Amino acid sequence: MKIVLAYSGGLDTSVLLSWIKENYGNAEMIAFCANIGQEDELTGLEKKARNTGASKIYIDDLQDEFARDFIYPMLRAGAIYEGQYFLGTSIARPLIAKRMVEIAQAEKADAIAHGATGKGNDQVRFELTAAALAPDLQIIAPWRDESYREQFPGRQAMIDYCAEKKIPVQASAKKPYSMDRNLLHISYEAGILEDPWYDSFDPKKNREYFTTLSVLPEDAPDKAEFVTLDFAKGDCVAVNGKKLSPLAVMKTLNKIGGKHGVGRVDMVENRFVGMKSRGVYETPGGSILQFAHRQIESLTMDREVMHLRDSLIPKYAELVYYGFWFAPERLALQALVEESQKNVTGTVRVKLYKGGIYVSGRKSEVSLYNPHIATMEADPTKAYNQSDATGFIRLNGLRLRVNSTVNGAKNLAKLR
Amino acid sequence: MKIVLAYSGGLDTSVLLSWIKENYGNAEMIAFCANIGQEDELTGLEKKARNTGASKIYIDDLQDEFARDFIYPMLRAGAIYEGQYFLGTSIARPLIAKRMVEIAQAEKADAIAHGATGKGNDQVRFELTAAALAPDLQIIAPWRDESYREQFPGRQAMIDYCAEKKIPVQASAKKPYSMDRNLLHISYEAGILEDPWYDSFDPKKNREYFTTLSVLPEDAPDKAEFVTLDFAKGDCVAVNGKKLSPLAVMKTLNKIGGKHGVGRVDMVENRFVGMKSRGVYETPGGSILQFAHRQIESLTMDREVMHLRDSLIPKYAELVYYGFWFAPERLALQALVEESQKNVTGTVRVKLYKGGIYVSGRKSEVSLYNPHIATMEADPTKAYNQSDATGFIRLNGLRLRVNSTVNGAKNLAKLR
Amino acid sequence: MKIVLAYSGGLDTSVLLSWIKENYGNAEMIAFCANIGQEDELTGLEKKARNTGASKIYIDDLQDEFARDFIYPMLRAGAIYEGQYFLGTSIARPLIAKRMVEIAQAEKADAIAHGATGKGNDQVRFELTAAALAPDLQIIAPWRDESYREQFPGRQAMIDYCAEKKIPVQASAKKPYSMDRNLLHISYEAGILEDPWYDSFDPKKNREYFTTLSVLPEDAPDKAEFVTLDFAKGDCVAVNGKKLSPLAVMKTLNKIGGKHGVGRVDMVENRFVGMKSRGVYETPGGSILQFAHRQIESLTMDREVMHLRDSLIPKYAELVYYGFWFAPERLALQALVEESQKNVTGTVRVKLYKGGIYVSGRKSEVSLYNPHIATMEADPTKAYNQSDATGFIRLNGLRLRVNSTVNGAKNLAKLR
Amino acid sequence: MKIVLAYSGGLDTSVLLSWIKENYGNAEMIAFCANIGQEDELTGLEKKARNTGASKIYIDDLQDEFARDFIYPMLRAGAIYEGQYFLGTSIARPLIAKRMVEIAQAEKADAIAHGATGKGNDQVRFELTAAALAPDLQIIAPWRDESYREQFPGRQAMIDYCAEKKIPVQASAKKPYSMDRNLLHISYEAGILEDPWYDSFDPKKNREYFTTLSVLPEDAPDKAEFVTLDFAKGDCVAVNGKKLSPLAVMKTLNKIGGKHGVGRVDMVENRFVGMKSRGVYETPGGSILQFAHRQIESLTMDREVMHLRDSLIPKYAELVYYGFWFAPERLALQALVEESQKNVTGTVRVKLYKGGIYVSGRKSEVSLYNPHIATMEADPTKAYNQSDATGFIRLNGLRLRVNSTVNGAKNLAKLR
Repeated sequence: MKIVLAYSGGLDTSVLLSWIKENYGNAEMIAFCANIGQEDELTGLEKKARNTGASKIYIDDLQDEFARDFIYPMLRAGAIYEGQYFLGTSIARPLIAKRMVEIAQAEKADAIAHGATGKGNDQVRFELTAAALAPDLQIIAPWRDESYREQFPGRQAMIDYCAEKKIPVQASAKKPYSMDRNLLHISYEAGILEDPWYDSFDPKKNREYFTTLSVLPEDAPDKAEFVTLDFAKGDCVAVNGKKLSPLAVMKTLNKIGGKHGVGRVDMVENRFVGMKSRGVYETPGGSILQFAHRQIESLTMDREVMHLRDSLIPKYAELVYYGFWFAPERLALQALVEESQKNVTGTVRVKLYKGGIYVSGRKSEVSLYNPHIATMEADPTKAYNQSDATGFIRLNGLRLRVNSTVNGAKNLAKLR
Repeated sequence: MKIVLAYSGGLDTSVLLSWIKENYGNAEMIAFCANIGQEDELTGLEKKARNTGASKIYIDDLQDEFARDFIYPMLRAGAIYEGQYFLGTSIARPLIAKRMVEIAQAEKADAIAHGATGKGNDQVRFELTAAALAPDLQIIAPWRDESYREQFPGRQAMIDYCAEKKIPVQASAKKPYSMDRNLLHISYEAGILEDPWYDSFDPKKNREYFTTLSVLPEDAPDKAEFVTLDFAKGDCVAVNGKKLSPLAVMKTLNKIGGKHGVGRVDMVENRFVGMKSRGVYETPGGSILQFAHRQIESLTMDREVMHLRDSLIPKYAELVYYGFWFAPERLALQALVEESQKNVTGTVRVKLYKGGIYVSGRKSEVSLYNPHIATMEADPTKAYNQSDATGFIRLNGLRLRVNSTVNGAKNLAKLR
Repeated sequence: MKIVLAYSGGLDTSVLLSWIKENYGNAEMIAFCANIGQEDELTGLEKKARNTGASKIYIDDLQDEFARDFIYPMLRAGAIYEGQYFLGTSIARPLIAKRMVEIAQAEKADAIAHGATGKGNDQVRFELTAAALAPDLQIIAPWRDESYREQFPGRQAMIDYCAEKKIPVQASAKKPYSMDRNLLHISYEAGILEDPWYDSFDPKKNREYFTTLSVLPEDAPDKAEFVTLDFAKGDCVAVNGKKLSPLAVMKTLNKIGGKHGVGRVDMVENRFVGMKSRGVYETPGGSILQFAHRQIESLTMDREVMHLRDSLIPKYAELVYYGFWFAPERLALQALVEESQKNVTGTVRVKLYKGGIYVSGRKSEVSLYNPHIATMEADPTKAYNQSDATGFIRLNGLRLRVNSTVNGAKNLAKLR
Repeated sequence: MKIVLAYSGGLDTSVLLSWIKENYGNAEMIAFCANIGQEDELTGLEKKARNTGASKIYIDDLQDEFARDFIYPMLRAGAIYEGQYFLGTSIARPLIAKRMVEIAQAEKADAIAHGATGKGNDQVRFELTAAALAPDLQIIAPWRDESYREQFPGRQAMIDYCAEKKIPVQASAKKPYSMDRNLLHISYEAGILEDPWYDSFDPKKNREYFTTLSVLPEDAPDKAEFVTLDFAKGDCVAVNGKKLSPLAVMKTLNKIGGKHGVGRVDMVENRFVGMKSRGVYETPGGSILQFAHRQIESLTMDREVMHLRDSLIPKYAELVYYGFWFAPERLALQALVEESQKNVTGTVRVKLYKGGIYVSGRKSEVSLYNPHIATMEADPTKAYNQSDATGFIRLNGLRLRVNSTVNGAKNLAKLR
């Protein structure tokens, strides 16, 4: 049997590599490590994998693809989950799984394996991607295997296992939470965060905990910084006047945004598997892009397109969060999104200050905002005749007048 | 003929009072001034109205009703227009119009009159409310009358008219924008704001312009302030442990929020009459309530109720913005909202700092967040069996596997 | 251990009763049979249950409750699944499960058991209801137990088992499909229907198969029949002028509708568990009520309420189909539905002819249709001024004109 | 001044041609008559137009374009307005207006004129199309001009006017309703139909009135007829095995459907201008296509795509009905629709009998229905493991169990 395993070289996936090999009839193990901007040390990873039992390792830099084909389309949709979460982990999983499937197909492997927990969203995202892209590929998820959970009730059992199997792992200090990082964000959950009353923004307690990509607002500079973003068809294509690839945009904005402490989110969210959980996220660059994208849309997007699209954001975000990236309904919504973005082109200037993002200007060659029409002063173009409003209001009110005449205004009394 | 006029005692409505009286056959004019928290000077208003030609004036304090029956139901719905606007002006208009209609009915008046422009949303909100509540009442809107616009092409013509008619008006300094204030917010538009590239957050230019209810972030205290809000069935019922009426909640939070510069919005928005316009808003208390309400919902609201409700917020907000408050479709949505709020009860703690609102904790007796279920540690209650996830994922992926088998994975290639 | 079993006295549930008792440590078995209009023979059922091993049997006539609290609220919502299915089986399951839970609680039972297959929707509907109403109650579903499936690979194994255990079962002739009947409908699936090209409307082949509640259109009388239905707040309260309870309405309309062959549906549908399946349904009374309800709504319901409600029907129907009847999101939608129905009152006359339902008139005291307004003749009431349409159209077209001016009309070229 | 007029040669538009010419300074009038399948006599039309005062006439056969670029995309969307109306008139207006705009641009005309009433939807559909495609073109709509309405209070005044002006019109018998016909349907409204209790299906009264394209069900043949339709990517491309263009499909199905009396609709509908109105429609071919399209979708379309699309049909249909065909939000929805149709390919067989359309089979090379998965018999492919359903249900029920534990099941009591 040949198995491709999502592997990082850390304690968890090292144990997995060895355990799966052992428990699946001395399977041939192919390790796979995607670089999606998590900034892990990758030197020596190949050697480590081989010493742990892998026959081969793929280390692929997917950062460009991640920014261009995953983060950017999602940003065009303006997707935010439950009004707060920028979907940083959710959007990375389908890419990793897609690449695993490609490797499995190239290597004629029988299965792919991952170390995601049976309580989380990631297992679903991985496996739905596999279902969509390689319906016959087998999935191995040891954490859903009761015997595995019994063998490894805690961290120490894993350390002991590695010692016994001579698996080279570095004992890193245990953090009082778990985390996941990529180009778009870093997330924290579990441990001390399990109490939803715990204050993750408290500088006294958390300055060293939740500040990987960004400072706390209190620690941001006292002087605001301005950033100019150019958009073309819904995508940010330049920062401060400099043309950049999607990947370079992300890196640039992460740095600037992190310095000013923007994009920090602390929330209780609803997992696809049915429970609520609590998460803390740093998304400095992504939050700037979301904010600026809304600004340029406000200038260039038709009202009805915006209202329609806005009503579909919760669905789109739900699909991404649940793991239905490679699902036909996400593609159907994406088609609508793409059509909505074709004139979303122009420039936005934002101010970053002490954790906040503020707009300081937007402009566009294809702006639909026409001050001649909007002005309260006399309009030389006469594009708008105020007398037209009478008929507009009369006909919009017609059904209300009829309803009131027939059913009485009492009919409209407040509910509560 | 008897006419009820929305009247403030300022230049605009003073001219209107006199002009309508004159142009509608020496009509009997009844002035009406609602106190909805605009903090205008009301002393001497009765005398001024009589001297301008009114036979009677109603000065009604509607602040309690405004907070309880308009702002609060809208906050329960989580309504935000086009992702940014807290609907401060929109929600006030139906109340003013409703009270005008009541006065007109009590006084057996033939018409109601207002001074809203023919380009704006307010005319629609006033008149749709009248259509719903008093379908036969006549509406007089002089600004939509071409002869009126020709007679008063600018401010000076109005001042001259008042001088000629001996109408007592106080010459206030002309501001380079127009504004509207109430308990929920103050709005600014037109004038210097017509350029969407103009930076309304610039402390150098705007410290004296757009800081009626709140300071600029840069001017906020260097020390964060914490506020605790208690919610019951979706409503904030206490601040910092003190039980308060909706009106008192609004006043308290406006003060605290304004001090820290929160709730400032600068946006380009789509008016119901078809044009884009640019507005700047200060909504200190409202923005805190919106933020905190989302937090307590995240802990106590069912996932599917939230996702459904979120998909309907754009529609609800559109209805409020367009003026369809007293419309059956708003009531239908409100019924759904009320049902959604019945367990939204608990406490939220927020931190206000330099223009930002951050959560520092939430808790509830009816929290649906269960750390025993969510935890990555062993769960003594065994409420969640990780093995269940296998079947869950398998069946959720079934249609994806079938689709992929039949149509091929290429079918799911990216669009762009 | 004490277990409540959904029991009909047929082969399947007789085997289940005995098998569960045996396999759960000689558990105390309480049989439960709901009369929801399936018209099964219930005489002798108690004796049969006791002889099969039950300690007690509940036989409850739930028809009134079914019509009033389940079918009627769903009809008020206008729910149809995937544009075709009247949800006859879906809406019965939550009621049966609710009653089972009540019995389990009254009897202090440990579990409830059912004989639904592991491939269908019914298992989900039963168990989600139990989850909502009695979260701690255990569920026993032997068909999802591999050992059970292996023990009973087919009908003969069950007959042999009964013989061996001396379980009194009557050998009914095997039908080439399976079916489920209640007050609202009868459904057929599987067997010969597995081929979606098979013609279930073919009189030559199917006259004896799919005609339990209704004749085939070809077999309906040559003379049309008219039926008058009175509605109050969305509910049919009288048929042909005679006041009737919801249950009596259903029975009356089933008879008349069945005679004329209306309400027959043959479709391929999507199950919640992820597969497509093919079903044939007879819903004579329900289809008349759906049709007539839409007619009376067309006269009395506000346009915007209707359009909003229509956009939510797919979601509501999905919830009923999937089994989320006792879920907070269904209740939230129901609240909206109830608000929408408060003026849906009046009379509809329909014609039934050879499988078709046609409207032959509708009228209402609270009709919102005003022929004076709609007429092309002169309108004495002058409720509508045609000149108003100019402004109405101008402002509705404003954003289109601006968009076209800025982006060009080419922008609107067809997609395909 | 040069004006393009929508012209048919009938009484109404003959009067218009002459009146506009006279009232717009002896304007140069260009008549335009589109053949969209209304089956009017077009011989002699040019001469008639010139004799009435036109300098030129365009008679354009737009039937192919109508079928291919308007009817077919709308059918792909499955659009039905208010659950009943197949949008036959609505979808024709944008095409006529588009062609008028093209002629106006080619002729460098200043305005386009139409004879639609100020109470209807057609004026809106014409003018919104013009707004989108030629924002600066002037619109002339005499029926909204009070002086015109006063000059022509009734039919006789028009006949007298024609006599006086020597306009050649043929005195056709006045019908007790008005009507509009094209390739997709014929509509009837006004006159005797203004009473919503009037029975348009009554053979005694209406056999000669509402039977232009189809017979009454009672008059249909006693023998059913079967029709086979092949679909490719959502479009019907062949009937009874014969490849046909969209236009030929429409003509073929109109004939067959009309013979069997299918597609007759009698409804009260909500106009965009705010009133309810009553209409009777014959749409024989269109109703067959709608029905068959849903059948082939049921076999080939993913469940989630279908549910999403279904929730958007009311919006799409509203846009078509209101006249927003050439609006960016319709294009955004169309993009979603196109994506949804890419695998909607296969064959449907329907039976037409006495006014009814029944499915008698559907099949597809890309069917997503897999009888091996759905079957209750043993599945050799083992694509579905019944044990998986346990976890699926458990996790879907998790939030219900938590909610019930925290808030109690009473929380879920029925509303009414």
